[in-house]
Amino acid sequence: MLDCAIIGGGPAGMTAGLYATRGGLKNVVMFELGMPGGQITQSSEIENYPGFFEHGKTGMDFMNTWQEQTFHFGLKHEMKKVERVAKSGEHFVVTLEGGESIEAMSVIVATGSTPKRANFKGEDEFFGKGVSTCATCDGFFYKNKPVTILGGGDTALEEALYLSNICSDVYVVHRRDAFRAAPPTLERVMKKTNIHLITDSIIEEAYGGMMGLDGVKIKNIKTGEITDMPNTGLFVFVGHDVNNSVLKDADGTFICAVNDWGQVIVDLSMKTNVEGLFAAGDIRIEAPKQVVCAASDGATAALQVIAYIQERS
Amino acid sequence: MLDCAIIGGGPAGMTAGLYATRGGLKNVVMFELGMPGGQITQSSEIENYPGFFEHGKTGMDFMNTWQEQTFHFGLKHEMKKVERVAKSGEHFVVTLEGGESIEAMSVIVATGSTPKRANFKGEDEFFGKGVSTCATCDGFFYKNKPVTILGGGDTALEEALYLSNICSDVYVVHRRDAFRAAPPTLERVMKKTNIHLITDSIIEEAYGGMMGLDGVKIKNIKTGEITDMPNTGLFVFVGHDVNNSVLKDADGTFICAVNDWGQVIVDLSMKTNVEGLFAAGDIRIEAPKQVVCAASDGATAALQVIAYIQERS
Repeated sequence: MLDCAIIGGGPAGMTAGLYATRGGLKNVVMFELGMPGGQITQSSEIENYPGFFEHGKTGMDFMNTWQEQTFHFGLKHEMKKVERVAKSGEHFVVTLEGGESIEAMSVIVATGSTPKRANFKGEDEFFGKGVSTCATCDGFFYKNKPVTILGGGDTALEEALYLSNICSDVYVVHRRDAFRAAPPTLERVMKKTNIHLITDSIIEEAYGGMMGLDGVKIKNIKTGEITDMPNTGLFVFVGHDVNNSVLKDADGTFICAVNDWGQVIVDLSMKTNVEGLFAAGDIRIEAPKQVVCAASDGATAALQVIAYIQERS
Repeated sequence: MLDCAIIGGGPAGMTAGLYATRGGLKNVVMFELGMPGGQITQSSEIENYPGFFEHGKTGMDFMNTWQEQTFHFGLKHEMKKVERVAKSGEHFVVTLEGGESIEAMSVIVATGSTPKRANFKGEDEFFGKGVSTCATCDGFFYKNKPVTILGGGDTALEEALYLSNICSDVYVVHRRDAFRAAPPTLERVMKKTNIHLITDSIIEEAYGGMMGLDGVKIKNIKTGEITDMPNTGLFVFVGHDVNNSVLKDADGTFICAVNDWGQVIVDLSMKTNVEGLFAAGDIRIEAPKQVVCAASDGATAALQVIAYIQERS
């Protein structure tokens, strides 16, 4: 029986593992099929993680030290995919791909969310090198420069407003002729003289070279016309998939309370409505989607797990 | 008129300043009378801040890089003491010591809390060098070694349980003959064979040398007997002062909702019940009192401030 099963190995899961083991829990496993680190390993530069400020250091550099720290206190890493988490009496059953199952006294779910791809040419090639899905993280790299946004929902327009404070011009490319965003958001966007809406259009191609993205080609899907937008950063906001499938029962219902978007409902202590089950990072409601916030969630959840296990021993 | 006034310059205030300015706010001031960094600058070693893991680095080393980053994006630092924050119509008035006042569209209060001192000999001398007020931070440095705790409330006994998982023996020194902690907590403490309760006693002295604390002398206040406890770490849990005085009106009432302990009530977005007023770090309810959590609060509050100001411009 594990003291705690941590599902997911991004900043939230890693910090949960660090705090749980450094706090004296002996039998803690982090389940992560890939390399620990999460989305951040794809970033070419980081300058907003508090205390970490070395010019030119990439997300991967950053993660090397972090990984060493994560496993220093006895956290175990299982490179296995978790299929499902279920509560069985007082404890939990974690079912792995292939059918193996493991019991745990507590579970921290930190499987995050995955920004959807728009599937244009060059999107994968320049991801993290000029193509971004996080304005808060990468907007400042385009201070007083033009940027292009792909998307027409609330997030796309909210991020356009955020970027309009930093960048010289913000071009919002949307494939429809109208925006789905909330009317007050759209109103504020219309008032900004440096936000330009380009409707009925898609990104045809992101192009560049060894140094990263150089520009994008925008295609009007009604006229077929292609416009070149050189020297721009590109932000893609076409939605997120919340990685909550491990919290689904065999019959498709969630084992804990989630909101309409499938994000796990937690309180300030990262408790879900199921005793012993905690959520941390981008999978939870109102997640700011920042590394430091995910890490904080992981620490908070692990401290709660330690207290939870104390209460039962 | 400031875009945002940040009150306090610990990890929460610094991160709020970093995120607010990097997010494009032009006129952001952090009010901190002392050196930015907060309590953490008093730590002799840090190993639980995610991503920061260099043996022997002190809290002060850590803060040097962090300070550079904090002010890199245009945050201003006013080395002045804030007396009071008041809402006046749509905006806030921040009154400084001496009577000067400054207007701000939004305020992030990040003044933290201060662990109370017990006032025994050697307490200040060895603070951060063997005398600690944070089990989560410093417990691991005493893995399989004995530690002494001073205090008899809930926190003292909860931290005793936390430390009992890590340390060989935990001696809890309490000046009364009974404990004020909640009965279930006390029950769990009684069941732990490596927690030893020493009642009717105080810490007479913490002693040591250049390398830090060596041990403590415990005095039974009924018999006057002094017991030497060599080779121990000392954790002092005699309460916290929540630094909320800036949130008090002239008549002593709080301008926002606080709980019975004077901690500011916030939601997951660090919003208080007053529009435009946010709280971050150890001043808020349910704060885990960890650097990474305070930093996360600061980032969250700053992102909310940016959206709040967008909505009003």
